[in-house]
Amino acid sequence: MSPARKASKKKGGKAAAPRSQKKRSASRKAASAGETDRRVFSFGDGRADGNSTLRELLGGKGANLAEMTNLGIPVPPGFTISTLVCGEYRKKKGKLPAAVRADVLTALANVEQIRGRKFGDPEKPLLVSVRSGAPVSMPGMMDTILNLGLNGVTVEGLAREAGERFAFDSYRRFIQMYADVVLDVPLDRFEYRLEHAKLSRGVTLDTELEGADWRGIVQEYLQLIEQETGAPFPQSAEEQLWGAIEAVFDSWDNARAIAYRKLHGIENSLGTAVNVQSMVFGNMGEGCATGVAFTRNPSTGENDFYGEYLENAQGEDVVAGVRTPQPINDASRTAETAELPVLSDTMPDVYKELEKIYRRLEKHYRDMQDIEFTVEQGRLWLLQTRNGKRTTQAAVQIAVDMAKEGLITRKDAVMRVDASALDQLLHPALDRSAPLEVLATGLPASPGAAVGRVVFSAEEAEARAKAGEHVVLVRAETSPEDILGMHAAQGVLTARGGMTSHAAVVARGMGKCCVAGCGVLAIDYAAGEMRVGDKVVRAGDWLTVDGSTGDVILGELPTVVPELGESFEELMKWSDRIRRLKVRTNADTPEDAEMARRFGAEGIGLCRTEHMFFDPERILAVREMILAHDSASRQTALAKLLPMQRQDFKGLFRAMDGLPVTVRLLDPPLHEFLPHQDDEILVVAEALGLSVAELRAKLESLHEFNPMLGHRGCRLGVTFPEIYRMQVQAIVEAACEISAEGVKVRPEIMVPLVTHAGELSLLREEIKQVISQVRSCYPDSRVRPSVGTMIEVPRAALTADVIAEHADFFSFGTNDLTQMGYALSRDDAGSFLPSYVEQGVLEDDPFVSIDEDGIGQLVRMGTERGRTTRPRLKVGVCGEHAGDPQSIRFFAAVGIDYVSCSPYRVPVARLAAAQAVAMEGAG
Amino acid sequence: MSPARKASKKKGGKAAAPRSQKKRSASRKAASAGETDRRVFSFGDGRADGNSTLRELLGGKGANLAEMTNLGIPVPPGFTISTLVCGEYRKKKGKLPAAVRADVLTALANVEQIRGRKFGDPEKPLLVSVRSGAPVSMPGMMDTILNLGLNGVTVEGLAREAGERFAFDSYRRFIQMYADVVLDVPLDRFEYRLEHAKLSRGVTLDTELEGADWRGIVQEYLQLIEQETGAPFPQSAEEQLWGAIEAVFDSWDNARAIAYRKLHGIENSLGTAVNVQSMVFGNMGEGCATGVAFTRNPSTGENDFYGEYLENAQGEDVVAGVRTPQPINDASRTAETAELPVLSDTMPDVYKELEKIYRRLEKHYRDMQDIEFTVEQGRLWLLQTRNGKRTTQAAVQIAVDMAKEGLITRKDAVMRVDASALDQLLHPALDRSAPLEVLATGLPASPGAAVGRVVFSAEEAEARAKAGEHVVLVRAETSPEDILGMHAAQGVLTARGGMTSHAAVVARGMGKCCVAGCGVLAIDYAAGEMRVGDKVVRAGDWLTVDGSTGDVILGELPTVVPELGESFEELMKWSDRIRRLKVRTNADTPEDAEMARRFGAEGIGLCRTEHMFFDPERILAVREMILAHDSASRQTALAKLLPMQRQDFKGLFRAMDGLPVTVRLLDPPLHEFLPHQDDEILVVAEALGLSVAELRAKLESLHEFNPMLGHRGCRLGVTFPEIYRMQVQAIVEAACEISAEGVKVRPEIMVPLVTHAGELSLLREEIKQVISQVRSCYPDSRVRPSVGTMIEVPRAALTADVIAEHADFFSFGTNDLTQMGYALSRDDAGSFLPSYVEQGVLEDDPFVSIDEDGIGQLVRMGTERGRTTRPRLKVGVCGEHAGDPQSIRFFAAVGIDYVSCSPYRVPVARLAAAQAVAMEGAG
Repeated sequence: MSPARKASKKKGGKAAAPRSQKKRSASRKAASAGETDRRVFSFGDGRADGNSTLRELLGGKGANLAEMTNLGIPVPPGFTISTLVCGEYRKKKGKLPAAVRADVLTALANVEQIRGRKFGDPEKPLLVSVRSGAPVSMPGMMDTILNLGLNGVTVEGLAREAGERFAFDSYRRFIQMYADVVLDVPLDRFEYRLEHAKLSRGVTLDTELEGADWRGIVQEYLQLIEQETGAPFPQSAEEQLWGAIEAVFDSWDNARAIAYRKLHGIENSLGTAVNVQSMVFGNMGEGCATGVAFTRNPSTGENDFYGEYLENAQGEDVVAGVRTPQPINDASRTAETAELPVLSDTMPDVYKELEKIYRRLEKHYRDMQDIEFTVEQGRLWLLQTRNGKRTTQAAVQIAVDMAKEGLITRKDAVMRVDASALDQLLHPALDRSAPLEVLATGLPASPGAAVGRVVFSAEEAEARAKAGEHVVLVRAETSPEDILGMHAAQGVLTARGGMTSHAAVVARGMGKCCVAGCGVLAIDYAAGEMRVGDKVVRAGDWLTVDGSTGDVILGELPTVVPELGESFEELMKWSDRIRRLKVRTNADTPEDAEMARRFGAEGIGLCRTEHMFFDPERILAVREMILAHDSASRQTALAKLLPMQRQDFKGLFRAMDGLPVTVRLLDPPLHEFLPHQDDEILVVAEALGLSVAELRAKLESLHEFNPMLGHRGCRLGVTFPEIYRMQVQAIVEAACEISAEGVKVRPEIMVPLVTHAGELSLLREEIKQVISQVRSCYPDSRVRPSVGTMIEVPRAALTADVIAEHADFFSFGTNDLTQMGYALSRDDAGSFLPSYVEQGVLEDDPFVSIDEDGIGQLVRMGTERGRTTRPRLKVGVCGEHAGDPQSIRFFAAVGIDYVSCSPYRVPVARLAAAQAVAMEGAG
Repeated sequence: MSPARKASKKKGGKAAAPRSQKKRSASRKAASAGETDRRVFSFGDGRADGNSTLRELLGGKGANLAEMTNLGIPVPPGFTISTLVCGEYRKKKGKLPAAVRADVLTALANVEQIRGRKFGDPEKPLLVSVRSGAPVSMPGMMDTILNLGLNGVTVEGLAREAGERFAFDSYRRFIQMYADVVLDVPLDRFEYRLEHAKLSRGVTLDTELEGADWRGIVQEYLQLIEQETGAPFPQSAEEQLWGAIEAVFDSWDNARAIAYRKLHGIENSLGTAVNVQSMVFGNMGEGCATGVAFTRNPSTGENDFYGEYLENAQGEDVVAGVRTPQPINDASRTAETAELPVLSDTMPDVYKELEKIYRRLEKHYRDMQDIEFTVEQGRLWLLQTRNGKRTTQAAVQIAVDMAKEGLITRKDAVMRVDASALDQLLHPALDRSAPLEVLATGLPASPGAAVGRVVFSAEEAEARAKAGEHVVLVRAETSPEDILGMHAAQGVLTARGGMTSHAAVVARGMGKCCVAGCGVLAIDYAAGEMRVGDKVVRAGDWLTVDGSTGDVILGELPTVVPELGESFEELMKWSDRIRRLKVRTNADTPEDAEMARRFGAEGIGLCRTEHMFFDPERILAVREMILAHDSASRQTALAKLLPMQRQDFKGLFRAMDGLPVTVRLLDPPLHEFLPHQDDEILVVAEALGLSVAELRAKLESLHEFNPMLGHRGCRLGVTFPEIYRMQVQAIVEAACEISAEGVKVRPEIMVPLVTHAGELSLLREEIKQVISQVRSCYPDSRVRPSVGTMIEVPRAALTADVIAEHADFFSFGTNDLTQMGYALSRDDAGSFLPSYVEQGVLEDDPFVSIDEDGIGQLVRMGTERGRTTRPRLKVGVCGEHAGDPQSIRFFAAVGIDYVSCSPYRVPVARLAAAQAVAMEGAG
């Protein structure tokens, strides 16, 4: 699992924590309000002593069982021994108080009555499960015993009811669990006997064993226990029960549980409850069945009851997939199950009851439920209900439908969809039902799927794409020179670089699928091939990459493009009404701008002008500009670029009619625009009339040890003022001309990499000068460009109060702020960041979600200090974090005005911004 | 001037500002205490109406003149028209109040009486100067008129007294100044006439003109003024006086003065005073003289009256150097002036009076004075006294002497020496009296002077040095591979890099002279030569470099090594008693450590273990370690290094017996240890039994885009734990073994580049483990190494409270903190930083003095937050800023415990730390 994915998983867990704590204290309150005397809480037959508010006393499971029972749901009856008893038991060093024993027996009698069965009865024995259930979920940490109540006598009764095979298989399972949990006999001893039995009977599967076989195995198990423990297996059902209850209480203090609590900060004193519940069986023959159902379609979200069942089977048979389950109704049919009988026909009464129940559950829990049911001899039992997992598409549909139905509020609906999953809906996805051969897995750097022929250079990508071919660009890593090739390709695959490497960032900006940092690829450009182990992929071979999973797959796989339904639009509309944070986009071309606008962008927050410089028609002029020997020849070269840039801005302004457009002046170091390969140097030198040596000398002089901290950003503006002057002239001329056409233009000029107020003060003066010069040529124009700055250097955040004196707006570049504040070059972090995550030094990749503890301080400080100088200072965030839901919540809390993300992240940001508001006050 | 020097000059000015403000408010108080009625303040003949506390009213100059008069110093008499009158004059729009006119005439009569001359008198005319004098110094901003009182009549009287030439030259000077200041006639008109006169008389120098010539020129000037102004030049002395006084008041509001005040934040309402003072002349013939003197020797600081004079001359003649001045006494004789008559013989009474005066002045001003005097017809007049400039050596001597004499306190003495100049005393200096040809000038990166033959490679430097030659290493830039060559050379010269480039930092650490960033050098390694313009310097040519000025000089110049006298030791002792900040040193070898200890270092604050890795005997093992394919082979290589490192540490610990030694674990990126040149790669590949391709592949894989933000520092420790384990083992073993010999060892282990508390937590555990493993082998040892961290990443400072949980001490690496916080790679800043300083964007190079406004916040935050967790946390600063006096004052204010600087900066730091204490409360 990539660090990013791991991180987001953990975060999910963390974010949920405060909610459960809140519930816990509510329950403590209820508990103290009057129920504290009671130690054993019965449930069953529509009546329960407890309810969902008593989680502290009953544990999560016990509280839920009580709640369902109270709803009139047919839950198998039982009782919960409260956590208070656990405390008493622990205090008394493993002795169950006599009063509790009495209460348990009373509650047990109640269960017997409801089920019409008796505990230890030779004819119709009642069997129970004994399970732990703590107030805070500790999955898999404590023990469970099923089928308790079986012994040499009751097993024969059960055999008469449900067959020998079933009865003795159940018995041996019980013995095995009981031995493990209560008697401390290691499980492998049993496994060995079972394997031996199968061998001697010449079979390989448990299901191939007959009743008599199981009967034999039970005998062997019983002997084994007597050997191991020096005593026969307890035959008294009641004795079994006490043993199991005490073992569950003991399990609270086993090493695993203690470690888990320490790790998750759970108090030792909480204790666990014990749930004793009647067993029900869907495999006792005629009139028996078991199934699972979703209250709505978990794949599409349609409001249809949806599920499947098996007749005369246990729950695990449905999951195991040995037999094909039948649909519960017509709506649940698939192509495969079109001919099978449905539950609504085979057990119409049961089905009707199930329908009533699912409606009641959904109404009560106000969410789509995933339920497990069992029909035992014609009687329906609900074993479990929980919020159902669903696809993102279904999540959107269900949330919107439920809000329309009045089941939840629109705010609830907005909270119901995982914002970070939302852009799955916008990209083509791989049809994973087709057979596939995963060659390697890299980082899921930019979602979507791409299919094409392998090319190893940007030039070839462009050439083949022009010829109408679909290609996947494979590079060790990408650089700005590869941008046009990336644009031409269907997708991008790199061997190096992280989630925020050049390839990843640019691809996400383009909405192009990308798998990055696929370290096992050994690319040989010269040979035109790459190797993964002994597999060789050659240029021209078909390759499929899945940017949502990081999978690289040999061959040409089908993809599907999901449709954005009305519900999606509705949910977005609701989000827009709730959120306060504005959402803009990062876009450098009119096409990107238009797409982002369709996705709801409210302006451009970052137009990177340098992306316009790489166009083949312009790069020569750019290089002339860089290689100019003096200011005059630099200006000559810039004069060639001016009309082109003006044209670019016109297109952007037109696309963003009425919305603000923030244009960042030239940012990257100049050497990025020069060729570095020998052959290219030759071509460029010739084109510019230079000697190769001259060009090399210039390249050498532009070389930097740490370009990130070098001559870039506004430092270019200070040292070569002509460049920014040309850019500002192009922006303002474009704005004035377009505005004369009736387009509403709101240009914002942004100065990058400001470290010191002196830089901005100087450049702002120059920019203002150019603005007023240009405006004097368009006397009627109402264009009033504002001038602001990126805050992307730690010092700028620290001195934001002084910098704000010269800025109409701030825009945090949290990528660079992270790189510098964290001393972490995103292009170089690949060599150690994985090891960091592995060793638990870092939980998160700070380029994926903003590091709130560290870099977040700079964002907060910069915002607050900037506003001490200009209380109404507009503050934005552009860059990768602006499209990350968790970071967006942080930005909203800090009081940022807008985020600006890549077009495909715009809906994600809109939703996340609304969720930030909805979560306010929820901690 | 380099940015650094410019910066330190400006700072000096800034630091002085609060003091003068303080004085100003004191003077305001005195003024309000009773003297406010008086508008004209007389001085002369031992009596003055004002004194030095009335600066607000009298201006700086007026207050000083009054003060000197009150001391009984024979100042030419005069009077000061107060700043209040300036206010009234400005309010009345240029009209001098009648009462003031009356007071002026009264005061003038007083002057006439003292001088025995009359204003406008045809026989013995009184001439006066009229000068502005504001409460705050505004040098050159306002006007001055000399010789006022001359007209057609008085000039003839003066001619009779002092000759025609003198009288008419004085008159034409007066006309010219008056015309410029009062009548607004452009100066160039006069220049033209003067040039014309010289041409027509066939001479080129003013001094070649005779009295009659000047008489003619005066006539032309008078005509010119009448032409230009339409009125004759005012012939009434009184009219001249009013015109001059009003012009001085007007000059307060001229454009230059307004701009100056705006720039320096001086209130417009202050106003200027006007000083009218009798002229005195040292060139009126017999019994006349003029001279300058220092109350102590400004070069050596010896307590001897020291000066020179010229008979029958004006002050400007002494300065102009046309005639050789005579010594005032025997102590002032030089080889050149050994035979000349001295003032104490030629004018014994005057000399005796001068002696009395200088003693009185020194006692009063409590500092060595630089005085100007004139003898007019046998009468001594003091024109000026001010604190005298002196060499650093003299400054030390004078400060210590004066403290011993009881003239000043020891604290005062400590404040009297410019700490940043102190290391001049420790390095050899160029004998600049020898003729020299400056080839080029770079940055004065490490002080001292070096003479040697040019070599262009570190290897050659080593080879030739071993052969006993003196060499100067010339490189485009240096890298860690050059360290041994740098050590072998007398000095280092680089074409690229700033004050904190590798060459500069390492050279300063070694106390080796270095000129860096000498951009005009075009080095051709292949040809073995460098060019500056059309000059060619070849390998083997003699070169002299002056690291204190940045000069690169052709040829072999003599150098002198200054002696450190007793006074220096005394001053250091006093500093040590005053300061609270401890001073440690950065040292990697026992030799450096011993030298630093002699300079007063109180421990090692930074031992860079990697410097030990470049030794030719070790580098192979280091490279094996880097190229190891797995942990086991890495350990094999490390095992070879272990005994060597242990030996290193033993040496250091021995040298630092009783003092703490902070050892920083490996910090630089591994690629720095690998060869990069083709030929070297070949050699290394062979030595390691690798193919060139393998070695190249490793190099390629270690390449980083931004190594500063890459895989270095503790990131190496996290990813390759064996390296740090070996280093810790070496440290602790060395400590235990040495301590068994009776040496007191106090090792401190320091983890570099910590960004996140998780890193330190993990590494600290491992380090503690190794410590206790080693210690278990030396059960008797009392060695208890502490474990701390560098704070050099912005995030570490921001989260210092959490990091402090795992650190026994902090040491700020303010170099890296500046690089990251400022987004400024010190190796790359050369391409734009000069332009920044030129354009006034930055005042200071943030690598020379810490940027208090920005990076300083991180230091303060890190210290304060660290101490919220550990109130007694020891906090140091290592790196360049630790040796910079201005930064040291800041660190002292923040509450840092110690600074650690290169050995030669230790005395600087000791003094600066004492000054920080002495300045407390002084604002």
